[in-house]
Formats: sequence, C-alpha cells, structure tokens
Amino acid sequence: MNNERANRILKALGEMGATQMLITDPLSIYYLTGVSVMPFERFYGLLLRADGKHAFFLNRLFTVPQEVGVEKVWYSDTDDVSAIVAHYVDPGTALGVDKDLSARFLLPLMERNAARRFLNGSLAVDRTRGVKDADEQEKMRAASRINDAAMSRFKGLVHEGVTEKQVAARMLDIYLDLGADGYSFEPLVAFGANAADPHHEPDDTVVRDGDCVLFDVGCKKDGYCSDMTRTFFFRNVSEHSRKVYDIVRRANQAAEAIIRPGVPLCALDAAARDLITAEGYGEQFTHRLGHFIGLNEHEFGDVSSGFDWPVEPGMVFSIEPGVYLTGDVGVRVEDLVLVTDSGVEPLNHYPKELEVIDG
Amino acid sequence: MNNERANRILKALGEMGATQMLITDPLSIYYLTGVSVMPFERFYGLLLRADGKHAFFLNRLFTVPQEVGVEKVWYSDTDDVSAIVAHYVDPGTALGVDKDLSARFLLPLMERNAARRFLNGSLAVDRTRGVKDADEQEKMRAASRINDAAMSRFKGLVHEGVTEKQVAARMLDIYLDLGADGYSFEPLVAFGANAADPHHEPDDTVVRDGDCVLFDVGCKKDGYCSDMTRTFFFRNVSEHSRKVYDIVRRANQAAEAIIRPGVPLCALDAAARDLITAEGYGEQFTHRLGHFIGLNEHEFGDVSSGFDWPVEPGMVFSIEPGVYLTGDVGVRVEDLVLVTDSGVEPLNHYPKELEVIDG
Repeated sequence: MNNERANRILKALGEMGATQMLITDPLSIYYLTGVSVMPFERFYGLLLRADGKHAFFLNRLFTVPQEVGVEKVWYSDTDDVSAIVAHYVDPGTALGVDKDLSARFLLPLMERNAARRFLNGSLAVDRTRGVKDADEQEKMRAASRINDAAMSRFKGLVHEGVTEKQVAARMLDIYLDLGADGYSFEPLVAFGANAADPHHEPDDTVVRDGDCVLFDVGCKKDGYCSDMTRTFFFRNVSEHSRKVYDIVRRANQAAEAIIRPGVPLCALDAAARDLITAEGYGEQFTHRLGHFIGLNEHEFGDVSSGFDWPVEPGMVFSIEPGVYLTGDVGVRVEDLVLVTDSGVEPLNHYPKELEVIDG
Repeated sequence: MNNERANRILKALGEMGATQMLITDPLSIYYLTGVSVMPFERFYGLLLRADGKHAFFLNRLFTVPQEVGVEKVWYSDTDDVSAIVAHYVDPGTALGVDKDLSARFLLPLMERNAARRFLNGSLAVDRTRGVKDADEQEKMRAASRINDAAMSRFKGLVHEGVTEKQVAARMLDIYLDLGADGYSFEPLVAFGANAADPHHEPDDTVVRDGDCVLFDVGCKKDGYCSDMTRTFFFRNVSEHSRKVYDIVRRANQAAEAIIRPGVPLCALDAAARDLITAEGYGEQFTHRLGHFIGLNEHEFGDVSSGFDWPVEPGMVFSIEPGVYLTGDVGVRVEDLVLVTDSGVEPLNHYPKELEVIDG
C-alpha cells in the first residue's frame, strides 16, 4: 500500500466533501497497492478512509501477495458482498465511489444506507494519478526511452514494396527486444493519404515514392505507457508536404515551449492551434492537442480548449498537433512531456527534423 | 423495435414492482431494436415504459438506422445527459436500471430524483432473453448446424505431429467457409493431459498416440452463438479412457433425457452428477452442468445445483458434463438444447459415440 498516494487521494476527496472512498477500478487499485487482479464479474474494491481504517475486499478466488499493507477482507461467491463492504464503511458520512461502479453493487450499498450519501469520487483519484510521483516519472522516462530507440528501428522497416501491415507486424518483436513488456496500444502505421485519417488501421497499402510514413506507436514498461508520433517521407517529399510538415513541427514546439507550472492546459492547445490556424490549416487540425497518460495510454485529463486545469509539476501528457489533408497527406508530431518545477522535460528525444527514408 | 419482447420485459419487471426500465446493455438494446452500437464511454440507453412512452437515448456521434420504431432522443457531448434522460422518466414510480449501469450515470439520475426509487431490473431482461422466441430459435438452430458441420472438419485437422495451436489456427477459416460470421468464443483445443484443465488454452503440445483430443468450439451466425464439445481419441484409446468417456456420454444423455417444461434446472445437474458420482468420479466433475446462451456465449442462467428455475419452452442452454483426471485425460461431451412444449430438441447432432481419429 502506497500511503502517500492514498493520502493525496483522500486530500482531493476532502475538497469534494467526503472522507472515505470505495475504489474499484483495477488500475487505480494497482496504483495504490501494486496488486493486479482481473475481477471480471466479481466485486473487487479498496476502501480508503481518512481515519486510516482502509480495507481491501477480495474474492477468495483472487490471487494476491501475502503482504499488501492494508487489511484484507475475503468473501466467497455465496456471501452478500454488500453487507461485508457496508460493515467497513462509515455510515455517518459521505462515500465517494468510482465512476464505473456498477448499479448491481452500488444499489445494495445504498439500500443498506452504508453511507450518509454517495458521490462520484473518481475526480479525486484521477487528479492524483494525473500528477506522477518520482517513481512513476522514472518509469515514464524508461518507457519513452524504449520508444525513442524503437522509432529508429521502425523507420528501418520501410523499403520498396512493403505494406503497412508488414511493417506493423514487426513492431512487437522490436519492442520486446528493447526490453518493453508489450504495446501500450496497437501501433498505427499509415502511408500517404491513409495518414490523413487519424484512426486509420494498418492495411495492405504499399509504400510509394513521396508518401508520408506516419508512426503513432507506444510500448509498456513496468506498467507505464509511452506514446509518440513521427512522420517521415519515403524517398522524396513535395514542397507542399514539406511546408505542412514544418507547420506541424513548429506547432509542436510552440506548445512545448510555453509549458511551465501555472499555465492552463487550454493555453497549450491554443498555442499550437493558433499557429496552425494562422498558416491556414486550422480546419485540418481536427482533434485536441493532447491527453494525459500513465498506467493507461489515455488517462483522465485533456490538453484541449475545454480543459482549464493549470499545469502542475509531475503531470505527463502528450503534445500532438496534426494536419490532415484528405486524399493527400497527414502529418502529426507527438511527444510525451513531463512538467517540472520550472518548466518541462520532454520524455521523447527522437529528432523532429523532417527525415526522408531512402530504404 | 420488437414490441413483443419489450412487453415481455415489462411484464417481468411488473412482477418486480416497476413499470419502467432503463436498459443500457448494448446487446439487450440490440435484442429489442436490432441496433448495434459500441458506446464506449458515452451514455447509450433505451427507456421502456409500461405506458408505451419508450425513448432511445443516442449520442449524435452514434450511427443508427433511420427507422427503429421508437422515439430517438439525441444528445451531444456537451449536454447534461442525466437531465435529458430524467425528462423522459416518470418521477412518480420506480425505475429499473441495468445491473451494469455506471455510478457516473446512475448517481446524477438519483440526485435529480428522476424516479421514486431505483432498483436493479436486469433480472427482467435476463429472464426474457433466456426464453427464445421463434425467430431466435431459428437462428440458434442455424448457428449449431454450422457447428455440427465444422466439428467433422476440425476432426480432420488432427494428424501425426500437429500441435494444438496449429489446429486452432485453422478453425476460423472453416467456420467462415461454412457461412458463420466468426467465433462465439476462442476455440479450446486440448490434447491428452491438457484436456484435464477445463481452462487450457491451445499451446505447442504435439498430439501423441492414445491422447484424447478435446474440442470445445462455437461460432456466431446472425448474432447468435453456438457452443459444442466433443472428445475424440488419437489412433487408440485405453480401456480406462474408454470407460471414462462412456460415463460422461451417459451423463450427458441422462440429463438430456429428462428435460421437459417444469423440471427444475438443478434436477438436470443432479441427473448427470449422480450418474458420474455413482461411477466414482463425482469429485472430478468440477463445474456446473451448463449455462444459458444466445446473443452472448454465456447468458444469465445456470444449469447447476444452485438454480431452481423450472425449465420453460424456448430456453436454450448447454448440457456439458465432464470428468478431468489431472495428468491423464479429460473428457467432456456438450450439446446445446432447446426446450420444446413437450420435451427437448437437441441443437447439436454430431454423434456422441466414441470416435478414434486415425489421421
């Protein structure tokens, strides 16, 4: 049990008016306890209480380590789990619950009046997970270091006659060879006009001279995710594509340049978007600038016009402007960045200068 | 909108004390409307009301047919969806909700006092889906007909030197060739002692003379699932394995023989289990006798000692006794069966006599 993380969650929860929270998201439980369980239909929960009387509810069929530093409460399939949980909840105060807690568990707790009231407390967990501590920062760096090294090798897979699928099929082995534990998401490989669709999946398209070659890729290492995009060109690049590339790269750098504690996330989106709009491609930058990331490849928190949280040291998010010209070309340049006490530490170091692949 | 199905759900719901239900399980919505949407994080719901004022809540990003025979209520990501849903719910009576409805949707409805009280109404949906109507029965037959034909071809994949994985890798093409839309679940292929683990996944084990060869396989056709198990032997079979096989086959037939409306499901489990226990293998029959099936490969409803529902015409479930001898052999014989007005119609017709593969 990581008490520092638990206390940060309880502090954020206190600002929402509650002193106890029932956490049921398996990744959030992993974040707090290091325990990894796939509960499927069964109840799995960690109760955090400001008075320190935490409890970890586990089905007897789950396998967990001997020592997790929190009281384990075992139940069987034949038990009434709501009665057991209610026994540990303070009925006199509000209870925060996970946003995804199912009605089949929540309603019985309510019928038992297990707490004075029930609120969606996930924001307290999400805000806490959004600010990485030193151990998490080191793991995020390690995952992105592998991603940087992988990008060089991915580039080397592109040669005359190769298809997107053939390139994508080689990526997992490269990640594993570099020490990753697996993908953080299925890799996106897009040649030419396919790159103009941000959700394109690798298909049998063969690379042609002058195509852009977009890789949006990430791996997992020790539970944490990386995520980076680079856009190359195959053998040659038109003047127009070069101009688009340059705009996107400058938008990426313009946003990264102003990151420091206190700047609102929406201002980063605006910095990139204003530059792209001034160049005439605002309508072709069709998505938010970035997203938070950590144990999940997408975590709560956006770098977008609708998100005005001030940037805080320890936050890790993507900066990924893109311009998509249907039927022609798509360019995206994405790094993960870690906010520091005074500015920003990019987690990706793969160069951003336009590269032509000669393979 | 299938009003007959909706009315059956509302009737079952009435017995639970409610006259309106908010259905959010995408497969249950498909069952009622024929609409298939993957909502991910977004709200997706169908409100059924006994007074006929149904409403179908859809995000503007979802794609649905023009005509679904129920009022469509569109919302955008920026709307407060709980306010919109609350407007259509009768605040004066109880509201049934889906067992998996998330706290982030349920709590705001409660805070608005959208209904007089909230209850888990999933049993009304599950009971209704558990009894297949004529159209569904025809689709269940069609999926199992393909499964019967596929079993003959799967048997033909087993030859000297082949591995479980190599056999499993060929199955999808065979299903597609026979007209299926895909798997209903990942096929289970187990040779020899591997078959003694009911959850074994196909691996690099090579088939050896005298091995049992267990196939637990199913496909989907027009949305409905098949599921059948047969256990063969490779080249020869020991007297002991032959004896175990015979016990399991007779247990399967003993249970199927007594199926007719009114018999409790637990009595079917007992018929198979008592036979296996009398032969000395009760401890090695480690699971329930069967499960319900339809749009999902496992639906609510068990054929087990803990389930005393009386059998009703239209129910479809599996009958799958097994005996698992660790390190030695595993045998399971499984059919799907459809309950008729006077008895039972097996949906699988692949023979159950012991077969030795000479490949």
